[in-house]
Amino acid sequence: FSSKLPDVGTSIFSVMTQLAQEHGAINLAQGFPDFDPPANLTEALVRHAAAIGQQQYAPMPGLLRLRELISQKTAALYHVPAPNPATDITITSGATEGLYAVLAATVRPGDEVLVLEPAYDLYGPAIRLQGGTPVYIPLLLPSFRPDWDRVAASLTPRTRLVLLNTPHNPSGAVLTTQDFDTLAGLLENTDTLVLSDEVYEHLVFDGQAHRSVLQHPALVERAFVLSSFGKTYHATGWKVGYCIAPALLTAEVRRVHQFLTFSVSTPTQHALADVLAHADHYRELPAFYQQKRDLFVDLLRGTGFELLPAAGAYFLLARYAALAPHESDTEFARRLTREAGVAVVPVSAFYHDGRDEGLVRFCFAKKAETLQEATARLHAFS
Amino acid sequence: FSSKLPDVGTSIFSVMTQLAQEHGAINLAQGFPDFDPPANLTEALVRHAAAIGQQQYAPMPGLLRLRELISQKTAALYHVPAPNPATDITITSGATEGLYAVLAATVRPGDEVLVLEPAYDLYGPAIRLQGGTPVYIPLLLPSFRPDWDRVAASLTPRTRLVLLNTPHNPSGAVLTTQDFDTLAGLLENTDTLVLSDEVYEHLVFDGQAHRSVLQHPALVERAFVLSSFGKTYHATGWKVGYCIAPALLTAEVRRVHQFLTFSVSTPTQHALADVLAHADHYRELPAFYQQKRDLFVDLLRGTGFELLPAAGAYFLLARYAALAPHESDTEFARRLTREAGVAVVPVSAFYHDGRDEGLVRFCFAKKAETLQEATARLHAFS
Ligand SMILES: CSCCC(=O)C(=O)O
Ligand SMILES: CSCCC(=O)C(=O)O
Repeated sequence: FSSKLPDVGTSIFSVMTQLAQEHGAINLAQGFPDFDPPANLTEALVRHAAAIGQQQYAPMPGLLRLRELISQKTAALYHVPAPNPATDITITSGATEGLYAVLAATVRPGDEVLVLEPAYDLYGPAIRLQGGTPVYIPLLLPSFRPDWDRVAASLTPRTRLVLLNTPHNPSGAVLTTQDFDTLAGLLENTDTLVLSDEVYEHLVFDGQAHRSVLQHPALVERAFVLSSFGKTYHATGWKVGYCIAPALLTAEVRRVHQFLTFSVSTPTQHALADVLAHADHYRELPAFYQQKRDLFVDLLRGTGFELLPAAGAYFLLARYAALAPHESDTEFARRLTREAGVAVVPVSAFYHDGRDEGLVRFCFAKKAETLQEATARLHAFS
Repeated sequence: FSSKLPDVGTSIFSVMTQLAQEHGAINLAQGFPDFDPPANLTEALVRHAAAIGQQQYAPMPGLLRLRELISQKTAALYHVPAPNPATDITITSGATEGLYAVLAATVRPGDEVLVLEPAYDLYGPAIRLQGGTPVYIPLLLPSFRPDWDRVAASLTPRTRLVLLNTPHNPSGAVLTTQDFDTLAGLLENTDTLVLSDEVYEHLVFDGQAHRSVLQHPALVERAFVLSSFGKTYHATGWKVGYCIAPALLTAEVRRVHQFLTFSVSTPTQHALADVLAHADHYRELPAFYQQKRDLFVDLLRGTGFELLPAAGAYFLLARYAALAPHESDTEFARRLTREAGVAVVPVSAFYHDGRDEGLVRFCFAKKAETLQEATARLHAFS
């Protein structure tokens, strides 16, 4: 039996997490908090796990109450018309399933999908599994801003989708209204759709605001926008995300979603609906994570890592040239895990061709004491 | 934008559930229990929902403890060598995701997949989304046994997979060791794989035992076997299933699974692991559901429905010719929902071409009082 993805190994996040466990390293590789969800959320799941009559299939598109609350929150947060809960919102098994469902629903053999690299490791293989061709366009370093000229030059009549990710994983870079205007201009009079991965929507720092594709009148008509309760509620293990798209596009997502997973955990959806009514949690997130970022940046001073600025998300990129001028990022990441006891992700894993920019990614979604212990180890290492 | 599945509407199960709600009908259409999971399971979820440090990503293939328990249970129940938890078992977001992952991992454009009809509504579209061609072979009515001569005649060098489903949805028919021997003979010296959907493995009645493809030495080497905690633990809303396959095949499933959903709810997996250690629950299931089947058959006497025998699963097929000789099964199912207040599934929904055998499907996974009220309505109707 020959593989459909012969060149694709186990996801880098699983690989580094396992390596961290083997070496007793602090896991700053895979992106997840080492603290728990807000107590009102876990209490809500406790309530609904024991609730009579709530343990069977949820409706295929998700609990209506949860979709209504997402609609209200979206309208209030982004000052946009409320998406129609009945026709525009689908609850998915994490943003991952949402992404896969959008790709499976839209990409046909021979279609091209523009992917700005470095990019989350699932985009390429998931596009290829549809018979599509990922067309990779490097972001401009060190800013990680899109090279719109190259995007323009890469658009063809076969371009089915442009994939955006803001705030960006792994760099934290954020797109601006001007970026959206530029893209909208390029896509005018084309059939190209947009998939915007905005799972870190609430994690934008330094007083900036996240700009959502939902806010752009021209793009929103052709866009699938993905978000994740796992990121917003420190509950990556709950695997609930959602996709917002115009009714016609949502119909296509649901056509696939109903055969991909059918529906999402019922008690978990009830629990999320209970807390979503309270807007305070996500409004506190920028300050909460900015403090962690700043603490981590502070603690890393003197370790020899040169940090790149991070406008959003919960990652920091670092050049390690001063520590190991000749080592590949993969070798360095593995050695750091083994010898320093701190696991990171080599940024080459975010490039389809393993391009090595001499960068590793730290996840700072960790308790202060974890960041302290990790940086103490890094000081000892350097 | 043109759909990739233009002829595929909303799943019949969602359609009939919604129609039931609109008309205040008792929902004997979509397959789910109207009672709750065992108390020790919901208590376990309550415990793990509140557990510190258990709310982040589970390992991509599933919690090792849960995989170990599945391995032990499988070996004990089917008297087979224990599948290797590290390499042969993957926890999925319901058997649905398992099915989709197997198809996405194995079916290439131009490949054929043999599907015995009537068949669960996702098989065909999920095959087509991979660029594959479902080759539909009708089961022999009224026994719903495979027509092995037609299977033999339909095998070609392009046949990537044969899809089995035992106990069978919607008929409850079960495959025998002899069936497996026949299939194994046909597949010898071919590269054709087997996907065996065994989500109703614990629901086989009248003293018969479920025969699993796992028990067949020749087939197991080339088989993906799917099961579902939702069916076994009356928790269809929890969306946890699993796939057992030899290491090389499991590697392919995981290659896709990691990009489809990545992982499954962590607290839910912990809860399932807690109860899986106790074998008593699933050993009681045959008697538990057989009693429901027998009660329902009894209560239906005199309503004019002619029931087909059901050896397994939690469905009963019924001919309604005596009640409505000239009505299509879809029209009849809708009218029954509206006028009798009892929702059922028309069996034509399980045929790709809508073949109408004059049959509807009842789900009897319901409390005794639900079955009593539903049959009282059916008596009033007829
Ligand atoms: C699904 S594991 C990866 C988590 C994540 O988003 C990341 O580490 O980038
Ligand atoms: C996923 S909803 C369908 C449930 C089911 O297995 C059935 O009704 O056949």
